[in-house]
Amino acid sequence: MNKKQLFDQIRAKASYLCVGLDSDIHKIPEHLRKADDPLFEFNKQIIDATIDYAVAYKPNIAFYEAHGLKGWESLMKTIAYLPDDVFIIADAKRGDIGNTSKMYARAFFEQMNCDAITVAPYMGEDSVKPFLDFPEKWVILLALTSNAGGKDFQNLALTEGDQLYERVLKKSQDWGSDEELMYVVGATKAEALTNIRQIVPNHFLLVPGVGEQGGSLSEVSRHGLNSECGLLVNSSRGIIYADGSKSFASVAGSKARELQQEMANYLEKYC
Amino acid sequence: MNKKQLFDQIRAKASYLCVGLDSDIHKIPEHLRKADDPLFEFNKQIIDATIDYAVAYKPNIAFYEAHGLKGWESLMKTIAYLPDDVFIIADAKRGDIGNTSKMYARAFFEQMNCDAITVAPYMGEDSVKPFLDFPEKWVILLALTSNAGGKDFQNLALTEGDQLYERVLKKSQDWGSDEELMYVVGATKAEALTNIRQIVPNHFLLVPGVGEQGGSLSEVSRHGLNSECGLLVNSSRGIIYADGSKSFASVAGSKARELQQEMANYLEKYC
Repeated sequence: MNKKQLFDQIRAKASYLCVGLDSDIHKIPEHLRKADDPLFEFNKQIIDATIDYAVAYKPNIAFYEAHGLKGWESLMKTIAYLPDDVFIIADAKRGDIGNTSKMYARAFFEQMNCDAITVAPYMGEDSVKPFLDFPEKWVILLALTSNAGGKDFQNLALTEGDQLYERVLKKSQDWGSDEELMYVVGATKAEALTNIRQIVPNHFLLVPGVGEQGGSLSEVSRHGLNSECGLLVNSSRGIIYADGSKSFASVAGSKARELQQEMANYLEKYC
Repeated sequence: MNKKQLFDQIRAKASYLCVGLDSDIHKIPEHLRKADDPLFEFNKQIIDATIDYAVAYKPNIAFYEAHGLKGWESLMKTIAYLPDDVFIIADAKRGDIGNTSKMYARAFFEQMNCDAITVAPYMGEDSVKPFLDFPEKWVILLALTSNAGGKDFQNLALTEGDQLYERVLKKSQDWGSDEELMYVVGATKAEALTNIRQIVPNHFLLVPGVGEQGGSLSEVSRHGLNSECGLLVNSSRGIIYADGSKSFASVAGSKARELQQEMANYLEKYC
């Protein structure tokens, strides 16, 4: 999916919501655990209930990998189930030397037909470039993450000016355009968004951490929206585990709808 | 496998060789491509031919993931085929927020019974810690990589002193001991090894890039060996693709033996 198509979807649904499929066998409702493929059954119902309110879905690959082959099957079925007009993000945090990154790109872009993959920047340009060889596919590079350990390295000040995450934003501009690169920016750092928007005014930002991790949708939207939206805001637990009973899907749908309606207001106001 | 057991293996085989299983369907000998499971068949023969000379094996996960479910099957069969007394490294470059890293740890330490996993440091402490909760399992943290893009961020100078990779080495000392943490240090940076050995005198270093990527085993050993060896030197292409004919396994065995014999000398001389 290219940038224009993504923005079209955002306008059509008046939403920049991404639903994080961090589907955990120990957290899904009990009645589903006996299904043939509990994770897929859970995802399917979550997708059906939220599809009108979300433009993107983000399976967290670890949660599937933890179950070995069976988990990969659930993941592939989930991705196949998602309609073509949603943006699919493999939250995989991959990144390796060139020939290895190329293999990861094949796995997620060819084998699984995802639209985007999250990538860690530590190994630099040649770890990112192979992903960019796939037209209309995206790299979402980690810039500033909202976890406690994020500050261990990302906020270190460099002698040439800039903190490390700012250097990641600037340096990676040489590798690809805003038609192929996005950035992960944690929502608990809403105050940093103004600064980030100055460095990357046109790029889409993937913002996890709204809700559970303490980020505010209002703050993120105020500082992060640009004229083509430029935001995908992820919610995982706040939607998929909002209710643990047989009504989990309809409650998930309501939660997604609440976020979508808030987003519709911000799109009108700021975008 | 704990540190003592690893060192015992190194002494028993007079080797600190790690064989990288970057097994690529397009590069393995043609006669194997029609096998039921070509990657596993190739790995099996490589393992049989090299097992007397290598203490560790490092499957590069991307090469299996690129083939979807079938690739994961080849990987799991390969890992199951490796004997208990070799050190198995999942070269996966994972790393994510705590609950996600925990899932990756389960995948590689429980589902697959690997001894170690490579992890990218960008997300800091809580992305690494969950891997350290598994006794006698190891995190091998990326410090200084030998690829061209390594210098994009790893060598950046920090205002508080240190380059980024040095900070990664120092900061991570707070997270775990030399009984549970190792570091990736590219062999093309042999001159940096002296400096690294001052920062982490007792840790094992995983050194890829000897051979094809231009690193010298002699230099790496001179600067990197410590009193408990402290090195695992990886060779992938130089062994597994040394020959493309039906004799590939015996040639791979010879190449591994050559490296082992050189290593035996260095162990005697420096360790």
